[in-house]
Amino acid sequence: MKALLDELVATHRPPSPVGRLPESIPHLADVDPRAFGIAVASVDGTIASAGDADVPFSIQSISKLFSLALALREEPREALWERVLREPSGTAFNSLVQLEAEAGIPRNPFINAGALVVTDFLAELLGDAAGSVVGFLRDLSGSSRLAVDESAARAELARSSRNRALANFLAGFGNLHNPVETVLEHYVRHCSITMSCRELARAGLFLANSGEGGPGGAPVLPAAQTKRINSVLLTCGMYDAAGEFAYRVGLPGKSGVGGGILAVVPGRYTVCVWSPGLDAKGNSVAGTAALAELTARTGWSIF
Amino acid sequence: MKALLDELVATHRPPSPVGRLPESIPHLADVDPRAFGIAVASVDGTIASAGDADVPFSIQSISKLFSLALALREEPREALWERVLREPSGTAFNSLVQLEAEAGIPRNPFINAGALVVTDFLAELLGDAAGSVVGFLRDLSGSSRLAVDESAARAELARSSRNRALANFLAGFGNLHNPVETVLEHYVRHCSITMSCRELARAGLFLANSGEGGPGGAPVLPAAQTKRINSVLLTCGMYDAAGEFAYRVGLPGKSGVGGGILAVVPGRYTVCVWSPGLDAKGNSVAGTAALAELTARTGWSIF
Amino acid sequence: MKALLDELVATHRPPSPVGRLPESIPHLADVDPRAFGIAVASVDGTIASAGDADVPFSIQSISKLFSLALALREEPREALWERVLREPSGTAFNSLVQLEAEAGIPRNPFINAGALVVTDFLAELLGDAAGSVVGFLRDLSGSSRLAVDESAARAELARSSRNRALANFLAGFGNLHNPVETVLEHYVRHCSITMSCRELARAGLFLANSGEGGPGGAPVLPAAQTKRINSVLLTCGMYDAAGEFAYRVGLPGKSGVGGGILAVVPGRYTVCVWSPGLDAKGNSVAGTAALAELTARTGWSIF
Amino acid sequence: MKALLDELVATHRPPSPVGRLPESIPHLADVDPRAFGIAVASVDGTIASAGDADVPFSIQSISKLFSLALALREEPREALWERVLREPSGTAFNSLVQLEAEAGIPRNPFINAGALVVTDFLAELLGDAAGSVVGFLRDLSGSSRLAVDESAARAELARSSRNRALANFLAGFGNLHNPVETVLEHYVRHCSITMSCRELARAGLFLANSGEGGPGGAPVLPAAQTKRINSVLLTCGMYDAAGEFAYRVGLPGKSGVGGGILAVVPGRYTVCVWSPGLDAKGNSVAGTAALAELTARTGWSIF
Repeated sequence: MKALLDELVATHRPPSPVGRLPESIPHLADVDPRAFGIAVASVDGTIASAGDADVPFSIQSISKLFSLALALREEPREALWERVLREPSGTAFNSLVQLEAEAGIPRNPFINAGALVVTDFLAELLGDAAGSVVGFLRDLSGSSRLAVDESAARAELARSSRNRALANFLAGFGNLHNPVETVLEHYVRHCSITMSCRELARAGLFLANSGEGGPGGAPVLPAAQTKRINSVLLTCGMYDAAGEFAYRVGLPGKSGVGGGILAVVPGRYTVCVWSPGLDAKGNSVAGTAALAELTARTGWSIF
Repeated sequence: MKALLDELVATHRPPSPVGRLPESIPHLADVDPRAFGIAVASVDGTIASAGDADVPFSIQSISKLFSLALALREEPREALWERVLREPSGTAFNSLVQLEAEAGIPRNPFINAGALVVTDFLAELLGDAAGSVVGFLRDLSGSSRLAVDESAARAELARSSRNRALANFLAGFGNLHNPVETVLEHYVRHCSITMSCRELARAGLFLANSGEGGPGGAPVLPAAQTKRINSVLLTCGMYDAAGEFAYRVGLPGKSGVGGGILAVVPGRYTVCVWSPGLDAKGNSVAGTAALAELTARTGWSIF
Repeated sequence: MKALLDELVATHRPPSPVGRLPESIPHLADVDPRAFGIAVASVDGTIASAGDADVPFSIQSISKLFSLALALREEPREALWERVLREPSGTAFNSLVQLEAEAGIPRNPFINAGALVVTDFLAELLGDAAGSVVGFLRDLSGSSRLAVDESAARAELARSSRNRALANFLAGFGNLHNPVETVLEHYVRHCSITMSCRELARAGLFLANSGEGGPGGAPVLPAAQTKRINSVLLTCGMYDAAGEFAYRVGLPGKSGVGGGILAVVPGRYTVCVWSPGLDAKGNSVAGTAALAELTARTGWSIF
Repeated sequence: MKALLDELVATHRPPSPVGRLPESIPHLADVDPRAFGIAVASVDGTIASAGDADVPFSIQSISKLFSLALALREEPREALWERVLREPSGTAFNSLVQLEAEAGIPRNPFINAGALVVTDFLAELLGDAAGSVVGFLRDLSGSSRLAVDESAARAELARSSRNRALANFLAGFGNLHNPVETVLEHYVRHCSITMSCRELARAGLFLANSGEGGPGGAPVLPAAQTKRINSVLLTCGMYDAAGEFAYRVGLPGKSGVGGGILAVVPGRYTVCVWSPGLDAKGNSVAGTAALAELTARTGWSIF
């Protein structure tokens, strides 16, 4: 495994910058565009990694996966699904049109509107949504150093016009129960958590392991729930490129504009890859290519 | 297996009509709404079935799966993907908006606009697209009696205003190469093929079997291709309920308004279920429920 | 008046081609892009003109104004308004979205979808919709030579994918009562009538004259009806530039992609201007500029 | 004139509540739904009125007309038109879609998004946008008692999720130059000015009088500007019913959800009518009907 990962690093680490960095988020534009890391965690407890797998990066939308899991863990009766759907949204443009047409019920928990509702749901249950996600990720990864990059969060919050607009739309439809600014702040803060590939691969392992693997050996979630989260990842986890990612990689996965992608091989592994250059849909160029090669060579596709 | 299928029939056959029948297609409104059949074909060559598994029904959109497979088989360089995308479309409404916004390139081969392009692609390669799909299905199922229900096709063709509109839009964007009426006729005719659950389960088995299992033992498609078809099924196969079907059932599948659903358990089985009553999204109510119970009890979900 | 019109010709006739010609309609691409004509008909019965005011051109969408007037004349109970609205449509894109959202009722009679419904309405009342519009225009203009350019109509009919798509959508919603191909043919044929500026100015004069001025001195329409047609012209007559035209010119008007614009000065005049080069919205560049100068100098704006 | 207005009051004052009151704005739900007032101001300086013409009501969106006029008065080079268009928007739904599609440039100054931009433009020029509109209206109406209903404004500001969302979208596109909350507050405050029919008719008279009639006899705006404002009123002043209002009434006008409508008869009169019950598009039911009868009987339609 280690040899395979080293090969992937050799092949896919960009010799010169590829894709684009998200200009709208200043601190993400400062990272080295040639960074590339990969880690594979196995349900047997081992982790292999290569490249920049220990460098922390901004997990951004990957946090949406963990806020969803935490919401389902804290409220097992799934009241959340009355406030957010589980269908792909098509383009960001469609997403806005849909929010209007479907009276403020976002299409899925991984588009921004849906993640704002999940954050609001957590804030209602637990008070501090961002702090709770940090705690959950510390427990899952076993890494107590995890934290919000507070200065990055402040900078991002000041430039969140689009998310603030979405949150106010949701509020106008009665689909936020906390004040807009509270929800926004919690949301931006849990997106601004920094983690390494190794930490993320370990944190997500319960999704490959039928929900097992919480701290102290307790299950994180029932197996039926992790299967369902994986299904939502597959259909909705890669922005408007879910179909393409399923086609090329064949695994449930969640990406973030920080350049990370966390993918799940049910029953076996999680894979986390990171490289900052993004394609037009907002997914890591080198990361997606490396995952496609990885599943082609290993046959890990779920299809 | 047989006992399990009998149980599913006992539980899910509607005692009285459920859902709705598609009024827009007269001959589909004549079937017995309490019909229910199920068949499971194994890659080991055996087939189990229960209920009305030998009653032929109109396969409707399930034919889109086979026209896609045939197109990829006949043109392995995949020129098709320059004319149709592989992303979920959201609602039918979005689908039309998207077609306009993306200059006549349909979002995927399983929405009507995409299937019209696939049909046109086949007509260009093979001349008679509908006849070719019939031949392909006869070979795959081993059932030479398969045929187009020509009177049903004629009736449907006369009421195809919406599909005729879509085809003319596509033609206006230069994305149909044959005359609109030719494409429409081929399309409606391959949708009007009648097959039983047993026949469909057998016909689709190559998708569960890494592409193996064509007539005379030849592979139908390379394994990489069947994985990819399965991924498109999962993200786009159930109209605007792909996310929900993935969540509840956890298998790639394709449904038709005739009430059939063909699902794939990669590496192991195909399952075909049929019951005519449809939900609001156009998928069989009893069929979806039976598949959800089947995967819950067997653990066949790919997630 | 004549001196003023000569001045407008001198100022606005393009010394070299401006704007664009509609490539989608071959015969319109053959005209001299420097042509420029203008005619002003007065309710006192006089006509002044200048430039190429006697050169026939393809009236295209200006025919929609006369098909609407004829429909209201033939069916004074206004049943037409149950099948088409009277609101601006925004962009062509919105127009398609709206048609879907409002179940096949076009926003107004001057977008293509609405004009197809008007044509269908005429065909139902009178049999030959195009022939009836030709007859109506001959009567109004006193020019018996008016006719459909049949070869242009045939060429256009063969390239009408977009309009054929719209017509099939309307048919799918039950808002066409005649066969799609019949409606399309009538529609394209009345768009392919050729007339000169002088003929059009004279034909439209009843709109400036409270409905008076039909053949033999009979009223064409009641005054209340012409006021209403003028209001629809103002809000919907210039494609997606109705607001801009009202702002710059201040008169009700209807344009066509043949480069003609017919404007109404209620109680006083009609003005017809023609110059083939079109702006991005499909309206004559030089024609609009000349009308803006005309109303600025004369104070004819209705505002 | 007085006799005619008395007749209109007798005919159109609702004997029992008609239409609906805007539930989203609490203080507007408290007015007497049977109130009805009308005033006609003449360019000769006289004013006739009847019914509740002296009862102040919340002018709401009618303030958008005066904020636009003030912006054009204060910045005659019309830089405003680089940030807002002059085209009808279709439905509120389209308006949102359009804002997204056209990169944050609202379709016209009378939809909420456009009026927010006008308010921002005024705030940039003059500091206190709401206070400036109040001052402008006091000067125009000669009524020094005019003021913002501050408690109503506070209540409305607290329930402005939808407008806050729009303002944040605009800010995200760079089309607001002041802080979102500042713009929103100014906007809601100038919408919360209360005026009577007589006061509004007098305040708008410059639009019927070629821009003449400011305090001390100075012109308010050049004649060319008032013609243009009237044209925008006609195409965009009545929400999504501009076409219908032009068809039935035939005058430029602006309505507010407080139940007021201010209409302009160019060169002659302004008419202000008020009755709180609204139709589905947000326009006064009784007010529109009274204006339709008024223009039918007087021939004041501009068409």
